[in-house]
Amino acid sequence: MRQSGFPITLTTDFGLADEYVGVMKGVILLINKGVPIVDLTHGIQPQDIRQAARVINSNYKYFPPGTVHLCVVDPGVGTARRIIALHCDTHFFIGPDNGVFSPLINGPESVDVYQVENRKLFLKEVSQTFQGRDIMAPVAARLASGMSIVHVGPRITRDSCVVISLRDPLVRRDGIAGEVVNIDSFGNLRTNITKAHLNRIDLGGHPCITLRSYAIGFCKGSYDDIADNMPAAIINSSGELEVCVKKGNAARLLRVGRGERIFVHGHRSGCQDADLAS
Amino acid sequence: MRQSGFPITLTTDFGLADEYVGVMKGVILLINKGVPIVDLTHGIQPQDIRQAARVINSNYKYFPPGTVHLCVVDPGVGTARRIIALHCDTHFFIGPDNGVFSPLINGPESVDVYQVENRKLFLKEVSQTFQGRDIMAPVAARLASGMSIVHVGPRITRDSCVVISLRDPLVRRDGIAGEVVNIDSFGNLRTNITKAHLNRIDLGGHPCITLRSYAIGFCKGSYDDIADNMPAAIINSSGELEVCVKKGNAARLLRVGRGERIFVHGHRSGCQDADLAS
Amino acid sequence: MRQSGFPITLTTDFGLADEYVGVMKGVILLINKGVPIVDLTHGIQPQDIRQAARVINSNYKYFPPGTVHLCVVDPGVGTARRIIALHCDTHFFIGPDNGVFSPLINGPESVDVYQVENRKLFLKEVSQTFQGRDIMAPVAARLASGMSIVHVGPRITRDSCVVISLRDPLVRRDGIAGEVVNIDSFGNLRTNITKAHLNRIDLGGHPCITLRSYAIGFCKGSYDDIADNMPAAIINSSGELEVCVKKGNAARLLRVGRGERIFVHGHRSGCQDADLAS
Repeated sequence: MRQSGFPITLTTDFGLADEYVGVMKGVILLINKGVPIVDLTHGIQPQDIRQAARVINSNYKYFPPGTVHLCVVDPGVGTARRIIALHCDTHFFIGPDNGVFSPLINGPESVDVYQVENRKLFLKEVSQTFQGRDIMAPVAARLASGMSIVHVGPRITRDSCVVISLRDPLVRRDGIAGEVVNIDSFGNLRTNITKAHLNRIDLGGHPCITLRSYAIGFCKGSYDDIADNMPAAIINSSGELEVCVKKGNAARLLRVGRGERIFVHGHRSGCQDADLAS
Repeated sequence: MRQSGFPITLTTDFGLADEYVGVMKGVILLINKGVPIVDLTHGIQPQDIRQAARVINSNYKYFPPGTVHLCVVDPGVGTARRIIALHCDTHFFIGPDNGVFSPLINGPESVDVYQVENRKLFLKEVSQTFQGRDIMAPVAARLASGMSIVHVGPRITRDSCVVISLRDPLVRRDGIAGEVVNIDSFGNLRTNITKAHLNRIDLGGHPCITLRSYAIGFCKGSYDDIADNMPAAIINSSGELEVCVKKGNAARLLRVGRGERIFVHGHRSGCQDADLAS
Repeated sequence: MRQSGFPITLTTDFGLADEYVGVMKGVILLINKGVPIVDLTHGIQPQDIRQAARVINSNYKYFPPGTVHLCVVDPGVGTARRIIALHCDTHFFIGPDNGVFSPLINGPESVDVYQVENRKLFLKEVSQTFQGRDIMAPVAARLASGMSIVHVGPRITRDSCVVISLRDPLVRRDGIAGEVVNIDSFGNLRTNITKAHLNRIDLGGHPCITLRSYAIGFCKGSYDDIADNMPAAIINSSGELEVCVKKGNAARLLRVGRGERIFVHGHRSGCQDADLAS
């Protein structure tokens, strides 16, 4: 009764209050009861394609090769938008063609893209409003069972896919202007500035970070070097610049929300951010 | 070490903040580590038997035949209420005899009902307050392992079971008076009016829908036909009439909560709902 | 492709809004796709080591022998705090050496403790801020695959481990002074007073319980004996004294939060709690 399968991850903006996630898992098990299913997150802000794109891109590589990553952040469900499946870096991805896979499509790895349109793989009845259940879950289950991706539909060029900007920070020789893109449940401020961005500029030894009117110290080493209840900037576990408060909640302490701008300067520039901020 | 098993779904009003759901899964794995366990939802409003009944009835058929659906929405836990197990439409169900399986017991499929009272299948110590863990989870795990349902206890008649009204809408020749029964995390207003109800009345081509003082357009086709940020009524993926706002939140925009009444008239009646509403 | 494995439980203060839990599961599957993973709870209050200690200690025994219980409530992540693995009562435990396993280390069962420091078992890159993903998840996955615990690092004495007080109640001959330690999603008030504490004192037949200015009746038997919407004290399914309101929300009705003190007296003492309360 049990087949074996590759894992499937689910990333949606459904939350967990409703039965939408559960019924998608039912459809996957209907096709293969041996597939491990992991909720990557259902806490994407409603219809926030950029956040979903960042989460999938930063985390897919922590799953086994062959994993199928299913993303249903789909404001265009029921319209003419396409559904696409990707094979990239030994992983599979399926979701709406709305930019959610932009970092992969624009990324350094080779990627093969297919349009999902083989109705034989769908549920018999396809609703207008829940194609995650009726189209994407059954196709993902078949990919996880080992079906070749060529069966989902015709191959399309990566150039034909919708690509969105993830709002990269402005990087100049003397500094970076970025923004807070997410606040996690601990109140940590996650930004669109990455380690790679920081490496591209000359920070004169120690970066100087400003957020609203606060100057935030940068902590290179371990949390041991940070005082309790003081804000500090670190490179977090996703390689992003993050402002946190040890044993506290940065968002609450600094009263900062998503979209707040953040500036990084080299120490030699004297921490004047008027230039970038203006 | 791993046996194989049919899936078990869990539907409760426990939420996910506490360890109650996790420990039920422990008990299931104690009996069979090979059972796939799916959270259908733990977001049922506390003790809302009607909502649980609707969710289970609408979604069980998306799971494989043989799946065991365990429902712990159980305001009567620790009282003399019975626990029942059902075999219906190739699926199994277990939960309190409080009406949560009313749509199955009253439904078109044949159903066999058993009273769960074989103490050999329970945990050794049975608490007064958590029979989901101590009775229902271990019995569900054994059903999912292939144990025949006749072992749970004596067969009982379906007529002896508690059946509750799901508050069906009032359907008349010229219109329907229903209500908003649930609001999902997107703010969509889910009603107790179904496609089947709509098919029973003569809508003169296009239904006319009113909610508070709003006239809501009905969208037959795809979301493409709806303007952004405008309320529209659709048949959702569960076959229910639902009021949504494309790229918005209907509950917030219309300031509507659960229990709000909603009216459907045929176009020929001139959209006067005074009749049904009064 | 699928190996079999013992279950892993996850207990964290991560919540479910972010991708942190999901990516830890990815790392587990990277090592063994056949491991059943159960969320015990991710609703521990941020950095509340005591609550995590209570939840794990009360619930681990509902899982199969051999289960690996991974706890990431880790305010000291990135500092010099150790990571430890325990073998106790046929179960395995892994987490920071911050007191989260105090009830096991101080408990009646024999326990072997090891310091987790074998880098060959970790992810190649270990971040300062997410050692749940980079160290604990891969080590847990290997324990769940059957690797002997001796491979995680050197054995250490239980005396060398951090042990914290769970704030036990004050138990005297004539009564108990405890506190509300958690409020569940139903509004039930869970206290640090257990059945064992109650058994140690002479309650003269029927205990008399006070909370703020309320005298709360104790219900020995079933919920049938409690009136609707009335507060009552019971022994809950974890063996704790709990104040609940049948068909209602005790926290809301009594306006009580965590930390509120609660007193138990024997009936013969006339329910005067001034003594213990002062």
